[in-house]
Amino acid sequence: MALTATEVQALIREWVPMAEDIDLRVEEIRPSYARVCVPFREQNLRPGGSISGPVMMAAGDTAMYAAILGRLGHVAMAVTSNLNINFMQRPGQADLLAEATILKMGKRIAFCEVGVTSRGSDELVAHVTGSYSLPPSDKKTGG
Amino acid sequence: MALTATEVQALIREWVPMAEDIDLRVEEIRPSYARVCVPFREQNLRPGGSISGPVMMAAGDTAMYAAILGRLGHVAMAVTSNLNINFMQRPGQADLLAEATILKMGKRIAFCEVGVTSRGSDELVAHVTGSYSLPPSDKKTGG
Amino acid sequence: MALTATEVQALIREWVPMAEDIDLRVEEIRPSYARVCVPFREQNLRPGGSISGPVMMAAGDTAMYAAILGRLGHVAMAVTSNLNINFMQRPGQADLLAEATILKMGKRIAFCEVGVTSRGSDELVAHVTGSYSLPPSDKKTGG
Amino acid sequence: MALTATEVQALIREWVPMAEDIDLRVEEIRPSYARVCVPFREQNLRPGGSISGPVMMAAGDTAMYAAILGRLGHVAMAVTSNLNINFMQRPGQADLLAEATILKMGKRIAFCEVGVTSRGSDELVAHVTGSYSLPPSDKKTGG
Repeated sequence: MALTATEVQALIREWVPMAEDIDLRVEEIRPSYARVCVPFREQNLRPGGSISGPVMMAAGDTAMYAAILGRLGHVAMAVTSNLNINFMQRPGQADLLAEATILKMGKRIAFCEVGVTSRGSDELVAHVTGSYSLPPSDKKTGG
Repeated sequence: MALTATEVQALIREWVPMAEDIDLRVEEIRPSYARVCVPFREQNLRPGGSISGPVMMAAGDTAMYAAILGRLGHVAMAVTSNLNINFMQRPGQADLLAEATILKMGKRIAFCEVGVTSRGSDELVAHVTGSYSLPPSDKKTGG
Repeated sequence: MALTATEVQALIREWVPMAEDIDLRVEEIRPSYARVCVPFREQNLRPGGSISGPVMMAAGDTAMYAAILGRLGHVAMAVTSNLNINFMQRPGQADLLAEATILKMGKRIAFCEVGVTSRGSDELVAHVTGSYSLPPSDKKTGG
Repeated sequence: MALTATEVQALIREWVPMAEDIDLRVEEIRPSYARVCVPFREQNLRPGGSISGPVMMAAGDTAMYAAILGRLGHVAMAVTSNLNINFMQRPGQADLLAEATILKMGKRIAFCEVGVTSRGSDELVAHVTGSYSLPPSDKKTGG
């Protein structure tokens, strides 16, 4: 039932239209883990060269969604319930990476955390925690 | 020093490129208040007709930024420090409205809350709180 | 089914033992609203005279619980799911008030916000949002 | 300048009076890490045997404070700025442990995360993130 990074990316681009706008890519799926990338592009930048907050939030949210899809398979009905983000420093002029880990997978709710970094650096630029509401199990498997 | 809705919209579209992607509009600025709108468009929708989470987060974040700009004037260096969002129900197939109120304007930090609704309905679809880090006062006024 | 402030206070002191430690009182219950008070006492203070963070969080959490009890009646099984608090300034040397409003009462989850002030002042010292997970409706009414 | 667990515990009990009420202990301090314990005691329990939310929040908050004190030495003026907690499951009838890690130590603000577990189990019962506002560096060292 687990999905590959390519399959998860296709689902995310279908379910989160903004992911298309920012050319979001799913780079890796492992058990309880996903890494997504927002490629460095001029049009995502604020003047001065920093990536804006909404791009980082979109990356964090979709990284959590990717980790859940990688674990549960097609869960089109999963929806974010709560998301909290701390912005720690300005991202560099580099690809933005968001690495999500599942903290707890319950029956009705999944909790995740996400570290956001600039490619090539270990320092966090933002940190996200969130919960996803899961559909009842008989609706979890899509076509 | 206060700015009009038109001026705030121009600044937001310059500083938050994603605002352009979703055609975000600043509808009203009053003291300590701003209302922004994401017009209903097919390309912002998830399959099934719901607006995706990142669009709601972008609306909430920019509504807070608009309220601060409306109060302080050009504060290009203000950056979101923390944002927390609770998603309460699926938005309707209508314009998305985000109404931000400044809870406290300190010297170094501003706190806001945002109610997100579908136009024509009073029920919250999401609720946002956030803090913005403000630049030192000698840097607050831009060109 | 609605409960009085006295009844809600008795339930809270039973369910949240820390409420007893800080002498928490339920002052008012109205539809979708509750106000609780932590009386000013030397032993709740940090050196320098400020009320510590955990006291403010306990007040915020129990105010939300009080608003839900006031609305639903005996809901002993309701549990906090997420709580977010922004600390805005040091509280004064006065009673601490926490006023909770229900933002949305769903079937499975209730969302609230809480303004925390020092008695005699309108300025927020802290602001809380939170969600409560509700028991299935056949378990909602206690003895 | 780093402090021992015993020294940190004494400072926390002075600065957070509620820590005394729940008999909070600082078990270990390592660079960028602290573990605190709330011993299992009947009087911290809700009916049914679960530890109430405010006790878990107090443990999370003080664990962050302990990690910062362990890193910076006497920082009496550090104050919590934002705290977000997700409650994941009912704690067991056992000591409650809160393990804080510093995510980023900036000049003006420190970001932490905390995993809360029941002693003897690896499963998270709650997860906390928070930010602490730090005093200017010339005020950081107390007596």
